[in-house]
Amino acid sequence: MDRSAEVICVGTELLLGDILNSNAQYLAQQLATLGIPHYYQTVVGDNPQRLKEAIAIASERSQLLIFTGGLGPTPDDLTTETLADFFGEPLVERPEIIADITEKFAHRGWNVTPSNRKQALAPVSSQILSNPLGSAPGIIWQPQPDLTILTFPGVPREMHAMWEQVATPYLQASGWVQQTIYSRTLRHWGVSESALADRVQEFFDLKNPTVAPYASKGEVRLRISAKAPSEAEALALIAPVEQQLRQRISDDCFGTDDDTLSSVVGQLLRQHQHTIAVAESCTGGGLGQALTAIPGSSSYFGGGVIAYSNAVKETLLNVSAPDLAEHGAVSHPVAQQMALGVRDRLGTTWGISITGIAGPEGGTETKPVGLVYIGLAGPHGYIASQDYRFAAYRGREWVRWLSICTALDQLRRQYPNVLR
Amino acid sequence: MDRSAEVICVGTELLLGDILNSNAQYLAQQLATLGIPHYYQTVVGDNPQRLKEAIAIASERSQLLIFTGGLGPTPDDLTTETLADFFGEPLVERPEIIADITEKFAHRGWNVTPSNRKQALAPVSSQILSNPLGSAPGIIWQPQPDLTILTFPGVPREMHAMWEQVATPYLQASGWVQQTIYSRTLRHWGVSESALADRVQEFFDLKNPTVAPYASKGEVRLRISAKAPSEAEALALIAPVEQQLRQRISDDCFGTDDDTLSSVVGQLLRQHQHTIAVAESCTGGGLGQALTAIPGSSSYFGGGVIAYSNAVKETLLNVSAPDLAEHGAVSHPVAQQMALGVRDRLGTTWGISITGIAGPEGGTETKPVGLVYIGLAGPHGYIASQDYRFAAYRGREWVRWLSICTALDQLRRQYPNVLR
Repeated sequence: MDRSAEVICVGTELLLGDILNSNAQYLAQQLATLGIPHYYQTVVGDNPQRLKEAIAIASERSQLLIFTGGLGPTPDDLTTETLADFFGEPLVERPEIIADITEKFAHRGWNVTPSNRKQALAPVSSQILSNPLGSAPGIIWQPQPDLTILTFPGVPREMHAMWEQVATPYLQASGWVQQTIYSRTLRHWGVSESALADRVQEFFDLKNPTVAPYASKGEVRLRISAKAPSEAEALALIAPVEQQLRQRISDDCFGTDDDTLSSVVGQLLRQHQHTIAVAESCTGGGLGQALTAIPGSSSYFGGGVIAYSNAVKETLLNVSAPDLAEHGAVSHPVAQQMALGVRDRLGTTWGISITGIAGPEGGTETKPVGLVYIGLAGPHGYIASQDYRFAAYRGREWVRWLSICTALDQLRRQYPNVLR
Repeated sequence: MDRSAEVICVGTELLLGDILNSNAQYLAQQLATLGIPHYYQTVVGDNPQRLKEAIAIASERSQLLIFTGGLGPTPDDLTTETLADFFGEPLVERPEIIADITEKFAHRGWNVTPSNRKQALAPVSSQILSNPLGSAPGIIWQPQPDLTILTFPGVPREMHAMWEQVATPYLQASGWVQQTIYSRTLRHWGVSESALADRVQEFFDLKNPTVAPYASKGEVRLRISAKAPSEAEALALIAPVEQQLRQRISDDCFGTDDDTLSSVVGQLLRQHQHTIAVAESCTGGGLGQALTAIPGSSSYFGGGVIAYSNAVKETLLNVSAPDLAEHGAVSHPVAQQMALGVRDRLGTTWGISITGIAGPEGGTETKPVGLVYIGLAGPHGYIASQDYRFAAYRGREWVRWLSICTALDQLRRQYPNVLR
């Protein structure tokens, strides 16, 4: 079997660069997960002649054509009628679509207009690919032997719902899905991609599951992907490899799949009934924002002090004025006193601090942009600080982002020690 | 003249959905700005046969082919040799590329390897499109009459630098650019897209410049785009339309182009030598982070208190315990006391507070998820608070984002009053 899919995104707004083509990435990921080969993507504007040419090319080389965009009510929306015209089949109004639009509009007190009626037209022999979230349905159509066409609106939310609820079951039932590809991602902080790759080099030669590294925004991921007839069988292939990788990697791995450093720290705090407070200088509140991105974080996050000026460091965090004068705000003593100060003030288990030079201005020869101190004060008199030199040339937001993630990572790594 | 460009992105990682095709959007915007028509985009994997087929199709229908990806040192990187093979021209090693790579590597103490030598190969009749940031250069090549090929690496940062520094001047010099399209964007907060559109409806019929609305993440933008032979002439077309729009819109417009609510607030504070402190509950530090995203914000941002728990609201912000008990933490009195409290504590001109229910849990019938109070304490005894009901179904991060932006917008809107 050498059938393949092709994605065709229709919309002049894509050719003008007004929107990013996230639909193509979504469909690519979905096709990869279902194990359906996919060799080409095409973007074409709202122009019937050029759309027809794209259909002609795609229907020669691919057997599953997936269209997004051009299903709306305006005269610009041409996908359905151009497809019908190309394959020489008449459009008919589908009463079930009119009924669906009428019902959806009734909720909002709207009337169905003539331009909505256009959305109810579909080729005679096509099935309707229903849209649970919007007024524009798609079609599932086999206009000729061994050619299947699926159409979706361009709105990502609607397209995703239709793909998951209707198109995926259809493709599974109609023989397009032979194997499932199931992936599990191990997520790491505090280690470089090359150092991690060196430690697990021989896993990259595995065939099923495969193991591949990805680096993004300071984090390194290892994706373990298995092909199997079912998810359970794929997971059974993945489990032993995951276990071996984890043994090799040890505590640089902070979590899997949808875990984040904030969610992992939150779980640890909750598990041990610990609480935390933050004292932030150069991150200006970003560490608190990251911790509170997790729903229910109020059970362990007390709050914090954004101590941007030295005055605030002294008055709200009890940082010693002589230490500020002698060592400067970006120093070990000040990072430690900030962490201790906020822990005392808020009466939490942990206090965590960040003080650094995010740039682009403010650096000196001895304290360059990118120099950041992270302090941690905890139970049983625990107090420590570490200094980092993040790559200043990557900019202020990069330094701040790495500072926040590294602070969370520091705290996470203390837990085995705390338990002793 | 009916010549057009086509973008061809090469990379199996795009077909697997591992990366988002931001290069296609970048090139689309750039082509639109230069006024070069662009009718198709194609994505194809690292496969020489399928890449050749894509070249065959594109060279029939387009006269400027722009390739991204496939220029690296590994055997997967096939763009240059496949192009040479398709058009039947031999590759030769270019000494200037070897010299450039050697020099770049010397800085890092690396040696040039045989796989780097592959990157020095280019078709005999092509020019080198130099890469100021990386080791993979592209080519500028006319393999046949009225067909121009430009190639770029897939790394966005390198591709952008090469586009701006080399490709754009080349296209201008070689007759591809007849007109410049220059845009100016007016940015608005605190007004819906439809309400704004109603106010400026007749501007949408203009032909040059055009005016078009865009809504994204709670903000509404109006883009004014003019076509003209030069940027100065385009700006002259835009200026009167911008002035008329601003009169119509008044203070819902907070800035233009690269302005953000944080940068605009920062400019106002700096201008008036004012300072600010924040008191945040549900946003957990996000308002402070937004204010300090601006380089140099330490001249007006003192710091703040993240008062996630009631205890912190009382001890650090002097919020009245009876008011907390009677009205709850999410209320007008508490929002006002938080703003006053942080202003007093930090001795700033302004104190600004956010207290609300970000969800998904924690809502009640009278205080649903999405209910947020923003308090503002300022000079001359100014004190006020406003309540908002943000759309809870869009999730926790949406409520927090709108809270932060609305707080900044509230402060910005006070300035005409402060000056009186």
